[in-house]
Amino acid sequence: MSNGLKSVTDQVSPASARDTRQFRKSAPSVDVAAWLAGLPAAQAQRQLGKLPLPRRAVVFAHLDLPLQVEFAARMPARDLADLVTQMDSDDRTDLFKHMDRRSQATLLENLPQSVRDDIRRLSSHEEGTAGSLMTTDFATIDARMSPQQAIEALRAQAVKREAISRPYIVDDEGVLLGSVELHQLIVAPDSAHVGDIMRRDPVSVTVDTDQEDVAKAIERYDLASIPVIHDDGRLVGIVTHDDAADAMQAATTEDFQRISTVRPFSESLRSATIGMLYSRRVFWLVLLVFGNLFSGAGISYFEDTILAYVALVFFLPLLIDSSGNAGSQSATLMVRALATGDVAMKDWGSLILRELAVAGALGLTMMLVVVPLGIWRGGYEIGLVVGLTMLTVVIIGSTVGMSLPFLLSRLRLDPATASGPLVTTISDAMGVLIYFSIATAVLDL
Amino acid sequence: MSNGLKSVTDQVSPASARDTRQFRKSAPSVDVAAWLAGLPAAQAQRQLGKLPLPRRAVVFAHLDLPLQVEFAARMPARDLADLVTQMDSDDRTDLFKHMDRRSQATLLENLPQSVRDDIRRLSSHEEGTAGSLMTTDFATIDARMSPQQAIEALRAQAVKREAISRPYIVDDEGVLLGSVELHQLIVAPDSAHVGDIMRRDPVSVTVDTDQEDVAKAIERYDLASIPVIHDDGRLVGIVTHDDAADAMQAATTEDFQRISTVRPFSESLRSATIGMLYSRRVFWLVLLVFGNLFSGAGISYFEDTILAYVALVFFLPLLIDSSGNAGSQSATLMVRALATGDVAMKDWGSLILRELAVAGALGLTMMLVVVPLGIWRGGYEIGLVVGLTMLTVVIIGSTVGMSLPFLLSRLRLDPATASGPLVTTISDAMGVLIYFSIATAVLDL
Repeated sequence: MSNGLKSVTDQVSPASARDTRQFRKSAPSVDVAAWLAGLPAAQAQRQLGKLPLPRRAVVFAHLDLPLQVEFAARMPARDLADLVTQMDSDDRTDLFKHMDRRSQATLLENLPQSVRDDIRRLSSHEEGTAGSLMTTDFATIDARMSPQQAIEALRAQAVKREAISRPYIVDDEGVLLGSVELHQLIVAPDSAHVGDIMRRDPVSVTVDTDQEDVAKAIERYDLASIPVIHDDGRLVGIVTHDDAADAMQAATTEDFQRISTVRPFSESLRSATIGMLYSRRVFWLVLLVFGNLFSGAGISYFEDTILAYVALVFFLPLLIDSSGNAGSQSATLMVRALATGDVAMKDWGSLILRELAVAGALGLTMMLVVVPLGIWRGGYEIGLVVGLTMLTVVIIGSTVGMSLPFLLSRLRLDPATASGPLVTTISDAMGVLIYFSIATAVLDL
Repeated sequence: MSNGLKSVTDQVSPASARDTRQFRKSAPSVDVAAWLAGLPAAQAQRQLGKLPLPRRAVVFAHLDLPLQVEFAARMPARDLADLVTQMDSDDRTDLFKHMDRRSQATLLENLPQSVRDDIRRLSSHEEGTAGSLMTTDFATIDARMSPQQAIEALRAQAVKREAISRPYIVDDEGVLLGSVELHQLIVAPDSAHVGDIMRRDPVSVTVDTDQEDVAKAIERYDLASIPVIHDDGRLVGIVTHDDAADAMQAATTEDFQRISTVRPFSESLRSATIGMLYSRRVFWLVLLVFGNLFSGAGISYFEDTILAYVALVFFLPLLIDSSGNAGSQSATLMVRALATGDVAMKDWGSLILRELAVAGALGLTMMLVVVPLGIWRGGYEIGLVVGLTMLTVVIIGSTVGMSLPFLLSRLRLDPATASGPLVTTISDAMGVLIYFSIATAVLDL
């Protein structure tokens, strides 16, 4: 009946050689691509060649970029040019940008003028902007047309099929005036004009808008695509919701990497190499060693206290970890809320008061838990020292954790970068100093 | 020209009282909702009442649910019933589920039979499933129709406008046969039949499919909506891409919360109360105190070693943190890769070997960094002890961090839950034991 969820979690592939033809013909293109990616290169290339050109272009675009480049390198120049001409403009630009200079030149030579210009224009935009995400496959109509005329005009346009679902209205200079959806044209009375039913001044972005802002706009306004305009108002491309969602997912993955002190990388984790993972992880690990020297310095300053009460060392990992844990809770909640737009820079003032209340309550709870442990290990005085330290470090850790993402954001750094490591380092060093200072005072050393 | 990105990051509201009418009339509905949410309740209610009913229903659905419930409670029963009747079926079901029993009963009394049945049916599905996300606003056509007949049939259907963009084809029993897009009907030749151009056996989900799997399917196949079927194959609803994206974003936020040891909550962080935040954060903080007793126990076992070489304490926070940091890098990368589907359970075997290589390289680097520090603080023997410990704990921390998400997943727990805290606790305790064991051996105590 339905291929349902099998296709989501499992690899989909033809059950037998006899099924191959049927699978190639009717399976979703992303599943055909996944199947090809698992075959030996020569065999995959042969199977790809058996697909009719339009479907071949769609399936090819679903392959990972390194694989696309590899396949492209093995294709006769004319075949590749035909395939590239057929691909969506954003997909073929991505492929082009990943090819080496020599292959790029050969490809351009073989392409029709219009495609060549399109690739040159699109590949000039900076990565991470609306320009680098957009496609030039969009359909336009005139505000003076009747719905019937508009539908006829759309049928006649040689754009990719999906684009006619949401045509844009431009004036004679190509300036964006409005947007309409195909279903609105269908249900509109024959006497109406496109100008009457279109949405005027649609939400739009410019070529250099950050891709995360593009994705947020698409999500906020539940759009199928968003128009991209030049400073002069001319419509130059559209970003579709699925491409924006892919960009957003990549940005979220980067946030996960940053909060765990991994420098961001965009490759799939499954296919990442040892050298790449090493280089992304070693930076902060080493830097944090030097951060920890502050804690070490605190400890050596209090060596006499430690020698007098060696039981204090028992609680050292506990106190340091609790402070770091409370801080990382606050920091991570804030990093995510800033990323989704739930919280904005201006909210810091009101949030810090709430954070102090929450941290105070958490600190008191933690104090109640550790005081009996302190008494059990070293008597009432140790209980007092451990309890007071816990209360203080949880409050400080939380406050630092909550504030750092804002501070980094203010400094125009990514809030996720360094929040985690800085929280740990700061709360460790403060923890050591506070712990032994309180101990020295209470134990009268 | 364009309200562009202003609308994404800033609050959008009418510039003056004179603009209010224009803003109400033509601003995007989500912006009108955001503006209403910022007004005093009575004023917001008055402004809402000035909108024509269809727009009022759309704007109302964009308000946060607690605010919807509050407004609903102040509306005359008949007005509320009209509004609810006009709302999308998934949105009104969400509202219904958040009302108290008494208001629910009053509302149901005032609704037309068909709407009442629809709400009853939809609200019976479990939270987090396709059934709880789906809407019953979908359009169906017959496979035997010509494109022109199909378009006429769609114009005649009293469904929400957007639904006719992607009609579904069902047989006389309502069993799902295929899907088609409006633009395909527009460009199809008049002689064709819907059955010829539809996509057969479209990807579908059942009412109890997990919502994250629904979102993954929509993303993988770049769908505008996905059909939801009963076990007997009957089409009972659709989940649209924007609702699925909202569900996915909420799930990702939960993953962020879990990896930072905060128990998941779905409320906005901005409006969360002190009590709620306290209760979500205190659980793991306290539990981790008891985890840390293992480290403490290790320390007290080695008290004589510490008293003989108090300089060893200098490196304790550094070694413990490094192990925890390396482990949390691995754990977070894995949690995210499992969530996006980049990595699957069966990949553990091949990934663990790569992890050992990466961790070995990281451990050696960290060893080279700390050996000079050890020699400087306490001589060659301390340098040797600290270096060997660093190498060991980084490798162990990484391996544990990489493996825990898989283990939790195997035990049918969320991989993000407890990965962070367990990594910290395990690597702390192992770190203490390894450190002082190596020290005892090398220093010949």
